[in-house]
Amino acid sequence: MSTYTHPLKDTLFVLKELVDFDSLSTDLGLDDVNLELAEAILSEAGKLGAEVLAPLNQQGDQQGATLTAEGVKQSAGFAAAYQQYVESGWPALVADEAFGGQGLPAVLGTAVNEIWHSANMAFALCPMLCQGAVEALTAHGSDELKARYLPQLISGEWTGTMNLTEPNAGSDLAAVSARAIPNDDHYLISGQKIFITWGDHQMTSNIIHLVLARLPDAPRGVKGISLFIVPKFLLDEHGEPGALNDVSCVSLEHKLGIHGSPTCVMSFGDQGGAKGYLVGEANKGLMYMFTMMNNARQAVGLQGLSISERAYQQARQYAQERLQGSRRDGSRMPIIEHPDVRRMLMLMKSGTEAMRALALVAMAEADRAAIDSEDQQALARLELFTPIVKGWMTELAQEITSLNVQIHGGMGYIEETGAAQHFRDARILTIYEGTSGIQALDLIGRKTLVNGGEHLRGLLAEMAQSLTALQQAQDTELSPIAERFSDALAQAQQAADAILTRAPDEPHFAGTASFNFMMLMGYLCGGWLLARSALKASAQLNHVGADKAYLQGKVTTARFFAEHYLPRVGSHLQMVLAGSQSTMALAVEQF
Amino acid sequence: MSTYTHPLKDTLFVLKELVDFDSLSTDLGLDDVNLELAEAILSEAGKLGAEVLAPLNQQGDQQGATLTAEGVKQSAGFAAAYQQYVESGWPALVADEAFGGQGLPAVLGTAVNEIWHSANMAFALCPMLCQGAVEALTAHGSDELKARYLPQLISGEWTGTMNLTEPNAGSDLAAVSARAIPNDDHYLISGQKIFITWGDHQMTSNIIHLVLARLPDAPRGVKGISLFIVPKFLLDEHGEPGALNDVSCVSLEHKLGIHGSPTCVMSFGDQGGAKGYLVGEANKGLMYMFTMMNNARQAVGLQGLSISERAYQQARQYAQERLQGSRRDGSRMPIIEHPDVRRMLMLMKSGTEAMRALALVAMAEADRAAIDSEDQQALARLELFTPIVKGWMTELAQEITSLNVQIHGGMGYIEETGAAQHFRDARILTIYEGTSGIQALDLIGRKTLVNGGEHLRGLLAEMAQSLTALQQAQDTELSPIAERFSDALAQAQQAADAILTRAPDEPHFAGTASFNFMMLMGYLCGGWLLARSALKASAQLNHVGADKAYLQGKVTTARFFAEHYLPRVGSHLQMVLAGSQSTMALAVEQF
Repeated sequence: MSTYTHPLKDTLFVLKELVDFDSLSTDLGLDDVNLELAEAILSEAGKLGAEVLAPLNQQGDQQGATLTAEGVKQSAGFAAAYQQYVESGWPALVADEAFGGQGLPAVLGTAVNEIWHSANMAFALCPMLCQGAVEALTAHGSDELKARYLPQLISGEWTGTMNLTEPNAGSDLAAVSARAIPNDDHYLISGQKIFITWGDHQMTSNIIHLVLARLPDAPRGVKGISLFIVPKFLLDEHGEPGALNDVSCVSLEHKLGIHGSPTCVMSFGDQGGAKGYLVGEANKGLMYMFTMMNNARQAVGLQGLSISERAYQQARQYAQERLQGSRRDGSRMPIIEHPDVRRMLMLMKSGTEAMRALALVAMAEADRAAIDSEDQQALARLELFTPIVKGWMTELAQEITSLNVQIHGGMGYIEETGAAQHFRDARILTIYEGTSGIQALDLIGRKTLVNGGEHLRGLLAEMAQSLTALQQAQDTELSPIAERFSDALAQAQQAADAILTRAPDEPHFAGTASFNFMMLMGYLCGGWLLARSALKASAQLNHVGADKAYLQGKVTTARFFAEHYLPRVGSHLQMVLAGSQSTMALAVEQF
Repeated sequence: MSTYTHPLKDTLFVLKELVDFDSLSTDLGLDDVNLELAEAILSEAGKLGAEVLAPLNQQGDQQGATLTAEGVKQSAGFAAAYQQYVESGWPALVADEAFGGQGLPAVLGTAVNEIWHSANMAFALCPMLCQGAVEALTAHGSDELKARYLPQLISGEWTGTMNLTEPNAGSDLAAVSARAIPNDDHYLISGQKIFITWGDHQMTSNIIHLVLARLPDAPRGVKGISLFIVPKFLLDEHGEPGALNDVSCVSLEHKLGIHGSPTCVMSFGDQGGAKGYLVGEANKGLMYMFTMMNNARQAVGLQGLSISERAYQQARQYAQERLQGSRRDGSRMPIIEHPDVRRMLMLMKSGTEAMRALALVAMAEADRAAIDSEDQQALARLELFTPIVKGWMTELAQEITSLNVQIHGGMGYIEETGAAQHFRDARILTIYEGTSGIQALDLIGRKTLVNGGEHLRGLLAEMAQSLTALQQAQDTELSPIAERFSDALAQAQQAADAILTRAPDEPHFAGTASFNFMMLMGYLCGGWLLARSALKASAQLNHVGADKAYLQGKVTTARFFAEHYLPRVGSHLQMVLAGSQSTMALAVEQF
């Protein structure tokens, strides 16, 4: 079994050097929020993660949630851990103060959430989905709905879920067919939803489902979907959970991983209709759902970081302890001394640090957007980052969790070791909350082509400034990074040009290029942020009292990333430039 | 559950166009062996694979082998299937005719073995290991040992195993500590071996273990290892299995995949010593084991092809059937019409075809080497190919089986679908029979640096000839392939130059570059063989009665490979050229 320790120093480095957390907090009007507070909060979260959640992770895998006559029973130990999580106030961290939240910056919430997902991803999915429900209700619910449901969701007394998918409506929400019939002050909801994460459990006194369904007179397609609140237990006149609503979990999926997270088939309306309450306006459900989904996509990208960090820690420990082969003096050596093992560890370490930088820098844009609702630039940047965070980080997590198995050799294939669990758990990340293909289409379409590449060019221009700074430092340690990053940036510009000129005319160009463009942008963003880290670290190397080994490590890690990940940018560029011909040429029968 | 059909046409295409099977058979003196016979044999194997072995694959995963008081009990249905496999004479296909084998070309054996591993990899591991034991005994056993053991191993009446690994001796065989004490006409073997595939079962009346152990006076390290035969049941005076030997399976590993294949902890000598018989000379066990290992490495590389083919077939079927999204006319479309799904399918299809070409072309060199034992060139080529077949093909299989999960979306994460099984099963391939890191060191060291790059340069020169032929064809369909292949070949030459010049002087250069060089060579070999296929296919397009759709498909597939895999060659070159600095710079404490 693998243990877990939150890499506090690395998180603080990013918050200080890349996010400029203190200034951000000041701009948010949070004068008492600063790095010192962040450190205190992260330390507490790190303790809960390491001591309470992480030890339940393997057990949750081996004895997953089960469906009983009384509904879904969560894995042993999860209910008590959830109680502890709630009592410490963690669910309220970034929520609206008007409803009991603590109103801390979103970027700090993300830094804290990294810990939960590293410690126990299956467990952390429950509060993660709840947070999405809170955001959707906060943004779109009526005052009455907010007052009835938000305080308990924010305190963690209740949990929330997202009910989108149906057997024939996966990525294609136009096909949603669940029905909602108006009835007095509520609606009667019926239909089946699948893949509902934490759709049922016994950890809280109520569960608030957010459900997509169609009104009788709704237009076809995505413009006829409405969003409803469907509580598991209907609220009585005191707002307390009372009678059971007409909704239940009818089966659990037997999955490759995240066994501790019940994935439910939910049935609504078997007894005539579950009582539901319309959120916002009718037929605007898809738009509202996107509020939850954008949050959830950032959160799933973050899971990619979290599970990579966990896998890296396990691989590092194994590589330091496992002896194989002998040194020249005859003594046996730990495998971390083998160059190819070290290559794999450096891929894990540098990839993970790049992801952390991107996840936090992206979420800081959400805070910036909140400072001034007129600040369209921060919002646009956040939206541009979202598919990259979700798409690229989860794809990279596949590779990094697989490297952990590889470093363990034969032991990695044995379940007891735990390396296989991280590998299995990670495999869902490129699928749920929109597959990598969906993210890639979002990036190339809605986030790039729709605005004529304006936001993309803005980002590339900012990267060019960073490159100039890197070059002007005239530091021999930084120059290999600058060279690689310069190549990669030019290649990205070439890819952007190709997309903006060819996509409008060449059928399927955008569709076939999208995944490669997303990956290209991911590696580029990672290389950019690590290059900026290296520049900051390098500048501090000669400060009095500097932690030289740590700072030098940042420079080396950035260089490794530049040398071993940035070359992939050129490779993805070639695939983008290849266009759609060979991808689309075969008739279906030729496959 | 996924079904399986052997892609006979593709195999025959490679045998005819790339291997020149008829000429090869003639050169081997096998006048009655030709493509027609190969087709008949492959058709029969395809039937057994599809109808008998493939249907047991998921069941073997769900109800793996178990350890009982009577030893290991194999998965339900496996014993009957094995009986059928033996009765049809499959184990004897390529074995020595002097001991009951059919003496068919090794390349045909490989083409047939592809089927078993596609149909049921966990099952096929049993005959695969046995084949290694047969080869080692054939090459190094005394006439007496051969007469006693080979006929039954070749007929499949008994199975064979390989016992190398110990708890502290994985990739590092120098640490082998099992003991062998001389005693009369035999040796008493004691010690524990782990990760022993099919180390016990009830499918045959005996199991013949090949075991590495040390004699009392043996030198330390790899030069003190000897190879022994240790039968599960000692043979009586009639050569029939009699008394139980002092060897048993003491536990089974709980693994990520290949559950149908029992992975045993074997204990030798708990009652004073298992009777063992020395194979060949003392202290030469490692060399002998390499006979088995080279065979096994080719075989594991082949498993990479097989499971990729199986995954591809499943993904193709799902993509043709699963409806998501709507066409402009409002009708729902199968996901194979989505460009990004098609991109993934083409990665799977072209990658699989490239692997098949390489597996067969490589094994044909074993046949060529057998024609004339003086033909050092064929042997050298085979040895050069071996780590590429094992290393690159199994790495690519990770990606291809993962793409199958991805194409299935949420359904891919549900175990019932079966996509996850292929993904889990495939994960062992880069680990057993020498990790990818070990293969990479073999390629860069023993196969390249040791001979001053002679064999590598020979291969690159042959590729340059193919490039010339491709360019001279002046075919607009082939020119995009020629362009990409030309770039990749030049990049490979650059990598080879760098390795040959820098590795001798730069510490750790070879070690840090090895994996990237192996992957580079894999993609290059794949691109080369598909380019040759395209050239052949293109030349036949205007023949009377040509299967144009099929031939055109070969050209398109080669082009896709050139456009979507060959760019990785350039990326791996950059990683090779980066050298060892950033990989090795961190102190252990900086991780």
